[in-house]
Amino acid sequence: MRKIILASHGDFSKGLLDSVKMIVGDLANCVNSYSLYPGQSASDFALELEKTIVEDKECEYIILSDLYGASVCTAMLRLTKLHNVKLFSGMNLNMVLELLTRFSDKLTTEDAEQLSKESRMGIQNVTLQINEEEEVF
Amino acid sequence: MRKIILASHGDFSKGLLDSVKMIVGDLANCVNSYSLYPGQSASDFALELEKTIVEDKECEYIILSDLYGASVCTAMLRLTKLHNVKLFSGMNLNMVLELLTRFSDKLTTEDAEQLSKESRMGIQNVTLQINEEEEVF
Repeated sequence: MRKIILASHGDFSKGLLDSVKMIVGDLANCVNSYSLYPGQSASDFALELEKTIVEDKECEYIILSDLYGASVCTAMLRLTKLHNVKLFSGMNLNMVLELLTRFSDKLTTEDAEQLSKESRMGIQNVTLQINEEEEVF
Repeated sequence: MRKIILASHGDFSKGLLDSVKMIVGDLANCVNSYSLYPGQSASDFALELEKTIVEDKECEYIILSDLYGASVCTAMLRLTKLHNVKLFSGMNLNMVLELLTRFSDKLTTEDAEQLSKESRMGIQNVTLQINEEEEVF
């Protein structure tokens, strides 16, 4: 079994989950979101999550976080000591969809690197190719 | 002047904007979001946006979209014919924050490529380095 947690400052993770559901459909509760709000501590959530994960050793936990080096990602870092946890930063829609479709089996270290690469490839400066004859505004 | 539009299927863009505001503070309305919901057409929005942009030639419009090749990004593609529009896919928190801080001047083509690279670098498989002596769960 696998559980995916989208973790962010504010509503980013909630919004991303909404979009994933809109595209993929019912996720049968295998993807959840965590939002850190002002006055809260991401470490408190990480400690609670650690207890859950330790008691659920057969389940693979994949945590996608918003920003490398920021408080949410850093609080989750301690969880990567657990054999059944993988953590990523810089989450985008591409990453979640790749994880749900192309990388739906248990993630190996090589898969994790490949998932990062594929997610990075989704970031593009997109420009319409224009024939020289066409009018440009 | 610059306007940034976060554009996505569902609430992803709204949630991302919420998180950016939580981190950066007041954005003085220079960043807005667009959400495509079932039954709507992203092309309708793109056409309306095009009218606004054509009448606002001095303003730089930067559109960050959710997924390369998907309907929101594709609908926005026609706008890149306009000299004052740049479009990116695969948006993440990293991308928005870089745009607001390191790339706050008018984006050159080189800046756009650099922004893509920096945003990609935010995507990492993050693992705690463990000394061999430490206990691993």
